[in-house]
Amino acid sequence: MAVVGYESVVRNSSGAVLLSFAGPCGLATTNQAEFHALLQGMRYLREKFMGCSIMVEGGSQNGKGNWKFQQSRGETHAMAASRKRSSSAKPVSHLRHEDSRSLSTNSALNSSPPPAKTTEAEPVVALAPPKLGQIFGISAICLSPYLYLLFFYYDIDAQLKWSILCNVFLSIGGFFATLFVIPVASRYLVRRNLFGYDINKKGTSQGSVKVPESLGIVIGIVYLIVTILFQHFNFEADSNWLVEYNAALASICFMILLGFVDDVLDIPWRVKLLLPSFAALPLLMAYAGHTTIIVPKPLVPYIGIDILDLGWIYKLYMGLLAVFCTNSINIHAGLNGLEVGQSIVISAAILIHNVMQIGVSSDPEYKQAHAFSIYLVQPFIATSLALLSYNWYPSSVFVGDTYTYFAGMTMAVVGILGHFSETLLLFFLPQVLNFLYSCPQHFSFVDDKGEEN
Amino acid sequence: MAVVGYESVVRNSSGAVLLSFAGPCGLATTNQAEFHALLQGMRYLREKFMGCSIMVEGGSQNGKGNWKFQQSRGETHAMAASRKRSSSAKPVSHLRHEDSRSLSTNSALNSSPPPAKTTEAEPVVALAPPKLGQIFGISAICLSPYLYLLFFYYDIDAQLKWSILCNVFLSIGGFFATLFVIPVASRYLVRRNLFGYDINKKGTSQGSVKVPESLGIVIGIVYLIVTILFQHFNFEADSNWLVEYNAALASICFMILLGFVDDVLDIPWRVKLLLPSFAALPLLMAYAGHTTIIVPKPLVPYIGIDILDLGWIYKLYMGLLAVFCTNSINIHAGLNGLEVGQSIVISAAILIHNVMQIGVSSDPEYKQAHAFSIYLVQPFIATSLALLSYNWYPSSVFVGDTYTYFAGMTMAVVGILGHFSETLLLFFLPQVLNFLYSCPQHFSFVDDKGEEN
Repeated sequence: MAVVGYESVVRNSSGAVLLSFAGPCGLATTNQAEFHALLQGMRYLREKFMGCSIMVEGGSQNGKGNWKFQQSRGETHAMAASRKRSSSAKPVSHLRHEDSRSLSTNSALNSSPPPAKTTEAEPVVALAPPKLGQIFGISAICLSPYLYLLFFYYDIDAQLKWSILCNVFLSIGGFFATLFVIPVASRYLVRRNLFGYDINKKGTSQGSVKVPESLGIVIGIVYLIVTILFQHFNFEADSNWLVEYNAALASICFMILLGFVDDVLDIPWRVKLLLPSFAALPLLMAYAGHTTIIVPKPLVPYIGIDILDLGWIYKLYMGLLAVFCTNSINIHAGLNGLEVGQSIVISAAILIHNVMQIGVSSDPEYKQAHAFSIYLVQPFIATSLALLSYNWYPSSVFVGDTYTYFAGMTMAVVGILGHFSETLLLFFLPQVLNFLYSCPQHFSFVDDKGEEN
Repeated sequence: MAVVGYESVVRNSSGAVLLSFAGPCGLATTNQAEFHALLQGMRYLREKFMGCSIMVEGGSQNGKGNWKFQQSRGETHAMAASRKRSSSAKPVSHLRHEDSRSLSTNSALNSSPPPAKTTEAEPVVALAPPKLGQIFGISAICLSPYLYLLFFYYDIDAQLKWSILCNVFLSIGGFFATLFVIPVASRYLVRRNLFGYDINKKGTSQGSVKVPESLGIVIGIVYLIVTILFQHFNFEADSNWLVEYNAALASICFMILLGFVDDVLDIPWRVKLLLPSFAALPLLMAYAGHTTIIVPKPLVPYIGIDILDLGWIYKLYMGLLAVFCTNSINIHAGLNGLEVGQSIVISAAILIHNVMQIGVSSDPEYKQAHAFSIYLVQPFIATSLALLSYNWYPSSVFVGDTYTYFAGMTMAVVGILGHFSETLLLFFLPQVLNFLYSCPQHFSFVDDKGEEN
């Protein structure tokens, strides 16, 4: 509270001053002075510029932020204008509305001069530092059994071990790249309104912090780059595995694309169910493994055969598996770090399964299938750990549907192309139980709310 | 102008009425009545609720839209709140600010009662109908030479012709799917602020229409679905071409992802140059064609050989070709329909080249390479024609970087995997000349403006 006055100015859209006025307010707070100037400005405007669009900016820097006031046809006008302005340096720049006149009210405490210019505040996103301590602990718990089995317990072919090590180094590179890129990408995401508030911290000071969303897009792109680079280290152009590897890349990439589109556009649930099925198709095409199941002993007399070739039914099952994995990671979203945490635990289990199968088998084709799975899971676990270091409670970033789709698809891909999709379902047991438990609710959701999921 | 009065009500954030007031305005327009009510409301607020956040909504339905007024810390608050509200039915819902109190002013002409409730206006996107007449003409001009050569002029193997026809039918399906999906997707894109104004229609009534951006994402997804489906019609799991086909899918999909990320986040130009190089890598890995060039006759005595194997230098050239194609389509953006138009013309030229090579050659491998190119170009041209029907002057949608990246990459992919990358550069001659002409300006841009491109 102080003795204040106000200075105001009315500008047209090109910035030229149409009108300026000033006056005393007596004893008042700066907000009251702002109001006073606003009232005065509106009285003038009512007489002179009735029917024009008006934009109001307040200039007092008292921590209450700026006043924005404008008449818009849709509620998103203010945002749209700012978005277009920021990209006006591009070859295709965009218009600002021609009929808007801008009114700036610079109210001032008489002890300090009014700020020379009201600049727009660029949102500052300062992420908490990554929680590397926790990540180190989690890595030790999840990965030490795998590394022990790989290096000490089993006697694994040197050539294969070298490929795996090469992949490990690339994955570590991916880990640090992700750590570095997440804060940068967060700025871009918040600037484009891809952020949320942490509903579980409602009422606390952390509940009103803007948390960047959809950081899965960073992980996804880093993952794709790492796996593409690894391709050049490990495969020859005529390798049999290259077709499956490329199919895996295509499926995972398509899923990341769909996840990001979902994050940005909020696509309806029907499309959400349909599109992952398409994403899984290149995978099924490239699948060169068995399509048979072993008939349980008691049933053999009735069916007459030991091994039943399911053919396209088996492929259908794998397609549904991909859709299930994708959605089952997503269904667990909502608690800090849960999506990433469960993905890391499942993929650590996959790694241990793979190395055990490689260790005990003597069939080179079988070994290769499990090595293939390792090549795809290691970069995934590395980039996910980097993401978890920011997503660990209290989260400074959210992962978005981009990550959950990407994670689900990656695990479905390694299960299918590594030829252990039944074992994969065991690792997904908590998710399967959760899915069965939530089925009734889920389907009544669909009936009741239609578009909303 | 009429005799009007106003009714206003002050609500807190949960909707409870804190204060209501009404009064006469005398002879005034509805906008003046709105202002009057606003002034009156602010006088009360100044006395009673100083320091709270205030949101103002006007209720007069006179075509000037609603008044929105709120004090926000950043300029994007209003938009953010609305975005979060729309997704509040999802499992992870988001907070609205607790300290906001809302003030609704329902001014009313005394001849009509005030509207019972002020609802938020959902932006209505009514696209102009697709310009199918122009599209029919363009298709006739571009595609009739190709179809004539395919069906009448050359005697093409029935098996190959059947595959091409199968692809044609899928592409036609893709055309209609795209026509149908574009208006739906436009609504989603505008709702998420992915729209622009047509700078070349500045000053006219069309210059202030919101034109949805980034429709390339629709084309990209439809294209991927068509090509994935075709894979199942045409290839066997052990086909040699499957590895290249999957590599093509992975590269194109990665490029669509990057384009859409660029549209949403406006990534800096350095990253824009770097990432397409990664997207091209799966392609180079899968490339099984020649890496040789024929040495021009006069130089043979000096070099000593007829055919020079360039090895990795040839692969580097192909990688740079992918980056060039991607950016050269983008550089022509800015005029209605130019990006899509040039892509259609170039791909029609590619189709004619392919069918001529198939017609005159007797080498099955060579024929297969050009058929491969046809399989990828036909769906591209079909979906692009559907996009052009909306993007033709006057554009009712914009294509975004998503489309230009996607188009450039698709053409680079077919050039590389069809083994005619040198011929492709001839089709890109206007773009090559434009690139050379703009080189000096382009590089000084880079020096002067840094981040902006």
